[in-house]
Amino acid sequence: MEFKISRDFIAQVEQYIEENNEVQLQALLKDIHYADIAEIMEELDSSDASYLFHILDSEKTAEILLELDEEIREKILKNLSAKEIAEELDELSTDDAADIIAELPEDKKEEVIQELVDAEHARDIVDLLRYDEDTAGGLMAKELVKVNENWNVLTCVKEMRIQAENVQRVHSIYVVDDDNRLKGRLSLKDLLTTSTKTPISEIYIKKVDFVKVNTPDVEVARIMQKYDLEAIPVVDELGRLVGRITIDDVVDVIKEEAEKDYQLAAGISQDVEADDSILDLTRARLPWLVLALFGGFISVSLLESFNAAMKHHKELFFFTPLIAAMAGNVGVQSSAIIVQGLANNSLSGSLWRRLIKEVSLTLLNGSILAILLVLGSHFLLGEGFNLALTVSISLISVIVIASLIGTFIPILLDKIGIDPALATGPFITTSNDIFGILIYFSIAKVMLGF
Amino acid sequence: MEFKISRDFIAQVEQYIEENNEVQLQALLKDIHYADIAEIMEELDSSDASYLFHILDSEKTAEILLELDEEIREKILKNLSAKEIAEELDELSTDDAADIIAELPEDKKEEVIQELVDAEHARDIVDLLRYDEDTAGGLMAKELVKVNENWNVLTCVKEMRIQAENVQRVHSIYVVDDDNRLKGRLSLKDLLTTSTKTPISEIYIKKVDFVKVNTPDVEVARIMQKYDLEAIPVVDELGRLVGRITIDDVVDVIKEEAEKDYQLAAGISQDVEADDSILDLTRARLPWLVLALFGGFISVSLLESFNAAMKHHKELFFFTPLIAAMAGNVGVQSSAIIVQGLANNSLSGSLWRRLIKEVSLTLLNGSILAILLVLGSHFLLGEGFNLALTVSISLISVIVIASLIGTFIPILLDKIGIDPALATGPFITTSNDIFGILIYFSIAKVMLGF
Repeated sequence: MEFKISRDFIAQVEQYIEENNEVQLQALLKDIHYADIAEIMEELDSSDASYLFHILDSEKTAEILLELDEEIREKILKNLSAKEIAEELDELSTDDAADIIAELPEDKKEEVIQELVDAEHARDIVDLLRYDEDTAGGLMAKELVKVNENWNVLTCVKEMRIQAENVQRVHSIYVVDDDNRLKGRLSLKDLLTTSTKTPISEIYIKKVDFVKVNTPDVEVARIMQKYDLEAIPVVDELGRLVGRITIDDVVDVIKEEAEKDYQLAAGISQDVEADDSILDLTRARLPWLVLALFGGFISVSLLESFNAAMKHHKELFFFTPLIAAMAGNVGVQSSAIIVQGLANNSLSGSLWRRLIKEVSLTLLNGSILAILLVLGSHFLLGEGFNLALTVSISLISVIVIASLIGTFIPILLDKIGIDPALATGPFITTSNDIFGILIYFSIAKVMLGF
Repeated sequence: MEFKISRDFIAQVEQYIEENNEVQLQALLKDIHYADIAEIMEELDSSDASYLFHILDSEKTAEILLELDEEIREKILKNLSAKEIAEELDELSTDDAADIIAELPEDKKEEVIQELVDAEHARDIVDLLRYDEDTAGGLMAKELVKVNENWNVLTCVKEMRIQAENVQRVHSIYVVDDDNRLKGRLSLKDLLTTSTKTPISEIYIKKVDFVKVNTPDVEVARIMQKYDLEAIPVVDELGRLVGRITIDDVVDVIKEEAEKDYQLAAGISQDVEADDSILDLTRARLPWLVLALFGGFISVSLLESFNAAMKHHKELFFFTPLIAAMAGNVGVQSSAIIVQGLANNSLSGSLWRRLIKEVSLTLLNGSILAILLVLGSHFLLGEGFNLALTVSISLISVIVIASLIGTFIPILLDKIGIDPALATGPFITTSNDIFGILIYFSIAKVMLGF
């Protein structure tokens, strides 16, 4: 079960740190999971966190390092020598070690690599560093269990015992030929239930899913999810087995992807967190606000151009925020559903059918809203019937257009290879504000005449 | 590697179906993965899909059933007898079988259960049906590998060979006492590298993470992610081992949770997909639009109450959509970041610090936007300096308030146990429209006097 970090517990830790009480601290944290210690360290100020890091068992610190927020990890790494960092990395698997090295400043990177004790581990880490972090190569670890197709089960089990020492979790046993080319796989279950004399070539499964080193990470995630895989081997351009990706690495990709779409919908253009610096947050947020501001300028000039309505129909101007808000909301709803459908690859059927569906859906919603609007503006707000009718007809037209924009802009962007999630949020609300006001006043002009 | 479903391939399948050409169809689909066949079926009309389902190998159909969209699955199940459905379920693991039975109409449920051939499988499925689908009990499968603490490794391996037959993937071997109470675990790796004579009680790991049957699914997902677990055992109220949850089941929970937050931010209140029915989509979308409409009524009456400004400062009304849009955008940005922070449990530090940070961030953004606004409205729109200044000061005030609402409403909701994601999207944009207009005209009234 889980350990809950209480305010009291943190206070206790802080007190021991202040008292320099190493013995009590170590006793207090002895049975605490490294993920929990990382969370505790994130609550401390950075010098306390550094102090805590130094007095902990070296077994735990490598894992803690991995769990920490990037910002705090950077601070702690700054206080460690290249040799100390190398010692931490020797405890980690190649993919995790490579991720941490990638975060170091250029000059320290080399120093740390020089200090790595295990030569093979070092070679594997350096190898991983050359892959782009958004590809299968950037996700994979070098640790895996593989056997040669020419062995028999006995040799295989013996070799596996040696290889398994380096692997945290055995998922599949991959089968390669003499040139290390991926030929197939053996399931652990098969191995548990097969006699030891059987030759590998007879029992291995020739069909094996794999990805290439340059496959994008979101594609890897999609394939592993679709085919329900817990691990997938990675091959290079020559089909040689170079690494393996496990589902837990992919969970982060899936989560980040879903969160990125959400952030884009909210007008945040980089992967930021609430605890990032003000400058990072501004960089992610300001561009969208500037876009919305310039969109706002357009709506101001549009309204000015319908200036003439002020004389006899000034109430029209009271309804502009309502029309704009409805257009924005409908547009965001439509686009969010389409963006998720595109992300999950679950959109089926023709564009034509989608068009009809979206229009019927919005006409249904729009009619209900229009009735409420007529009733509301007449009885709640005491407007005349003509005005209420004009606003209602405009509302239906505006939200139909808004829903079409919300539906087809993401599809269009996706077709030309741009992330459709960009089309949600500020982009949609701003353009729908503009179209909304234009349509609203145009209809009003025709109906009321000004 | 992955098979790509082309338009041509679908056309070929449709042609064979039309020609009733079973032999060619089977040949065509022989080596296609069930997940791909499910996707192909989703592209077909429902009678073609049913036809295809009937002519396929029974080995594949059970898996296909599982992969299909709920809507299409429902149609296909409707055409199958209770006995046929039971045959499919016999091929599936208990958790998947239980999920499908749960979707059946009440009367068919019982019929199907009666027809299940494997008595133990049937018992396990019935057992799973009684758990709420949003809990650990609803996620878990009954298939697992467990050994008694009183055995030795030899007995253990023998027993495991038998048990492993029923388990698709062996993750951990759980250790129980004579009353089936969870005591610890054995790792497969330890088993591969330990001599067969060792007694279990000597080698098993006494520390084991577990969840209870009634632990909420999002909590299970959080624990498995935090502690990097690929499988977690589930115990009942008496600590007895009743099931196991694997990371691939949890991937769906993580994804759905992230998508749900996104949908709520977009004003969609139920888990719907683009391909759901118009009625389902309306139910998920209309309530938020009605909320926005009533919010709109409030802004109309607010604007009416500032009617007096029309006489000398009608330009103020041209800027209302701009002010409302900026307030909405800032509010959504702030709330999205906080909602994600709450969902990921990654918010640290005091409320007070967060308040200062949010205000500084918005003042920074606001000042830049205000300068752009003064320049833009003067040079682009040709407004007077007094008006530009009024609008700019209002803009800064409005977005500071909007960001505070966006930050603290989700935190407040979370504290009182309501899903903070509800506070993003239409709720925030609507309330910020209203506050925005109120603040804007109040400041204008003071500065310009009307």
